[in-house]
Amino acid sequence: MELAITDALLVTFDPDRDGSGVVEDGAVGVTDGEITFVGSSVELDARSADRVIDAAGRAVLPGFVDAHVHTPLTLLRGGTQDLPEIEWMTRGLEPLARAMTDEDRVAGARLGVLEGLRSGVTTFGEYTGEVGRIVEEVYDPFGARVAATETINEVAEMVGHDDPGEAYPLDRSKGKAALSRAEALFDRYGDDPLVTPMYGPQALDMVSPGLLGEIRDRADERGASIHMHVAQGDRERRQVRARYGPDATTVGVLDEYGLLDERLIAVHCHGATEDERARIAGSGARTICCPSSIAAIDGVVPPVAELLAAGAPVGLGTDQAPGPGGHDMGRELRTASLLAKTDRGDPTALPAWEALRLGTVGGARALGLDSVGRIAVGARADLAVFALDSLGTAPAVTEPLHTAIPNLVYGGADAEAVFVDGEPIVLDGEFTAIDERAVLEEASERAEAVFSRAAEDWRAADSKLVGAAREGRL
Amino acid sequence: MELAITDALLVTFDPDRDGSGVVEDGAVGVTDGEITFVGSSVELDARSADRVIDAAGRAVLPGFVDAHVHTPLTLLRGGTQDLPEIEWMTRGLEPLARAMTDEDRVAGARLGVLEGLRSGVTTFGEYTGEVGRIVEEVYDPFGARVAATETINEVAEMVGHDDPGEAYPLDRSKGKAALSRAEALFDRYGDDPLVTPMYGPQALDMVSPGLLGEIRDRADERGASIHMHVAQGDRERRQVRARYGPDATTVGVLDEYGLLDERLIAVHCHGATEDERARIAGSGARTICCPSSIAAIDGVVPPVAELLAAGAPVGLGTDQAPGPGGHDMGRELRTASLLAKTDRGDPTALPAWEALRLGTVGGARALGLDSVGRIAVGARADLAVFALDSLGTAPAVTEPLHTAIPNLVYGGADAEAVFVDGEPIVLDGEFTAIDERAVLEEASERAEAVFSRAAEDWRAADSKLVGAAREGRL
Repeated sequence: MELAITDALLVTFDPDRDGSGVVEDGAVGVTDGEITFVGSSVELDARSADRVIDAAGRAVLPGFVDAHVHTPLTLLRGGTQDLPEIEWMTRGLEPLARAMTDEDRVAGARLGVLEGLRSGVTTFGEYTGEVGRIVEEVYDPFGARVAATETINEVAEMVGHDDPGEAYPLDRSKGKAALSRAEALFDRYGDDPLVTPMYGPQALDMVSPGLLGEIRDRADERGASIHMHVAQGDRERRQVRARYGPDATTVGVLDEYGLLDERLIAVHCHGATEDERARIAGSGARTICCPSSIAAIDGVVPPVAELLAAGAPVGLGTDQAPGPGGHDMGRELRTASLLAKTDRGDPTALPAWEALRLGTVGGARALGLDSVGRIAVGARADLAVFALDSLGTAPAVTEPLHTAIPNLVYGGADAEAVFVDGEPIVLDGEFTAIDERAVLEEASERAEAVFSRAAEDWRAADSKLVGAAREGRL
Repeated sequence: MELAITDALLVTFDPDRDGSGVVEDGAVGVTDGEITFVGSSVELDARSADRVIDAAGRAVLPGFVDAHVHTPLTLLRGGTQDLPEIEWMTRGLEPLARAMTDEDRVAGARLGVLEGLRSGVTTFGEYTGEVGRIVEEVYDPFGARVAATETINEVAEMVGHDDPGEAYPLDRSKGKAALSRAEALFDRYGDDPLVTPMYGPQALDMVSPGLLGEIRDRADERGASIHMHVAQGDRERRQVRARYGPDATTVGVLDEYGLLDERLIAVHCHGATEDERARIAGSGARTICCPSSIAAIDGVVPPVAELLAAGAPVGLGTDQAPGPGGHDMGRELRTASLLAKTDRGDPTALPAWEALRLGTVGGARALGLDSVGRIAVGARADLAVFALDSLGTAPAVTEPLHTAIPNLVYGGADAEAVFVDGEPIVLDGEFTAIDERAVLEEASERAEAVFSRAAEDWRAADSKLVGAAREGRL
């Protein structure tokens, strides 16, 4: 046994236990990266373990699953937010993103992944172009689990498309190159225990029907998931009408092209109607919502509660830092709950235990990762340990209810320890093998250079932020 | 000069500077608790200062003003949330609150105030019964600034009033006793540089017109503020109709009784109509909104943006921990912004610079504290220092915009240093003179005892949480 965690409040989300699967005075034993014991501390002989964590006064949860992230963009945090939705990407993000080198993207990903790990994330649903490099230089050395999705996008040039009613010109060669990168990712990482490659057609308005069919066929052959932004708002709606006819909707077109099924991971979905949400759920597709991001960028609450009610598997993601601010997954659970409550006018919407479930087993199920998201014998040992006697989580009582569950969601704390496949990534609140200072310094230096290179373009794009900066507000 | 802070990014909110009042490579000098220098670091000779803080890579802000809090309830964090609004107080909170002793309330306040201080709060708008004891045992020894409001409430007994259409019975002697405590507070702390006493008629449905008139007259005599929950939802609306007639509203009755004027600090206001918001703003009254709390408890977004548009001074508060989860003020700013964006369907609503302004000078103005909330010569030295190279705030660039401003709001970090009247309360992320571990241990022990004493009553109240606990969700 390489690891024993004892005397903890376990919140297992094991479907074989009642409710949230709480075990008081609980212990977890880990052998070869797999959970081999879950139960009462008195029943575990921890003496033979290589490492024993005394978790008295602490909660142990399945590591969080941040199911949808674009971490390279963390380098641009603060560069685009508080803008009209129509400006956010083309006038805010693009002028900055264009100035990034591959090395800048790696530095941004390191920063974003570190922020996530510190908050207790063990699995990331990474979604980016040239994701193989991010896996190689960030996820792999950091030891984090990743559902790695290669973005496939045929839009020739995003900048300047302020009129989304006119179809963007597509560039088939761009799509082919991205699909090749996706194939290379499968070839390299198909058998990696910590990496699950996925196909990532970015959105229906950004790929041609021909390429979409090809992706569908390849995903079929490989038994792989198709991770795709679906029904993400007005820009896409207008593009889909321009391409597929005045009555076309994303969900309808996906169904027509044979993509609306179990392979699909549909992200966002805030542009889907109630009928379309039911079609998504009925098809067996999985879904991911990003509450902070869609609130910040679109001013919209994504349909977390509605997709759950329709019966779809739902995971949560922090999306990208510019806009919502970062990759703290505990904060995302709180935000998801408060937004669901106000959107529905119902303070019982998305209660703490449901938010925690979505952040763990919900995200695992959404990504199709059956071996994580719960603390149960046979599952991989992806675990997060949280102090319950911190200024944000105390007091934790066990009678007449476990206040740890609401306090971890509405209060919150950084993880004190994080394990992936039983390997410690964080211990005593510190990264065990990652040089946090070096990551921060490199990110800060590179960001300064990127923003400096992009400054003229950013100003020329003339978003509303440019005026705010000129007036000294920013 | 007792304190010099050098090489910082200052966000001063000094009205004599443009926009947010940013000063790059800035310095602050403090003498006798007062800010005596603000400007470029090269212009300040820091050698004579007793303490020099090198704030390179850091932002210095006016300390946050958490304008409305009930910190003793922090001991009950996790005990009542995710409930229908009608159950939250009577079936969730009250059975627990009744089991608290005075010592428990002090222990809860210590925990809540510490959480706030750590997040960068320097002024608290405390609102509680027997607030004098909380000032004496918590705010005074901790060295925090407080607008101390004695809750004045004549409701004989809150439990069991599930029908808010029937007026609660009032107990005049209870109100008189509370008013006497308020008077004692003024007598004792009227000249204290860190304590500003206020009158706190809890809400229009909880005090009689006679007592309200008496409070108005006393506030007039003392030139004091009346800090009052106003238009806080359906329960109050129905009570006010039951007491004052079928067309009566809180704002109308307050106006009729001569309370709608500059003395009034109107908290919440989510039950006010657009006309009533205009009446509040036009009267010169100040307002405070508590976004996380009202979202969590009522499923409603409070009218922050709307009150600002109407021209009212607006501050923000974290209210109480049970429900929204705690007193982290940076998080409150982010929540305020995201909720405003989704409520209005406008991602430009409550931008970062405006949220920061509300959390500092806005709160100071709402509480009528003219000497804090800005970094300017002559203001008191209430300051918060934030690292800009943390996992939540990096990267901070200064060109073409100051990303620190959005990153402090949407990203966020605990304060690295906190000063009140120039005295260091937090340095290097640690409390200088407060034993954090002792506060946490006492709170945890006392909470366990309170929840245990209250368990039977809490279960008997039969809120929806009782079922969730029985099913193992909680």
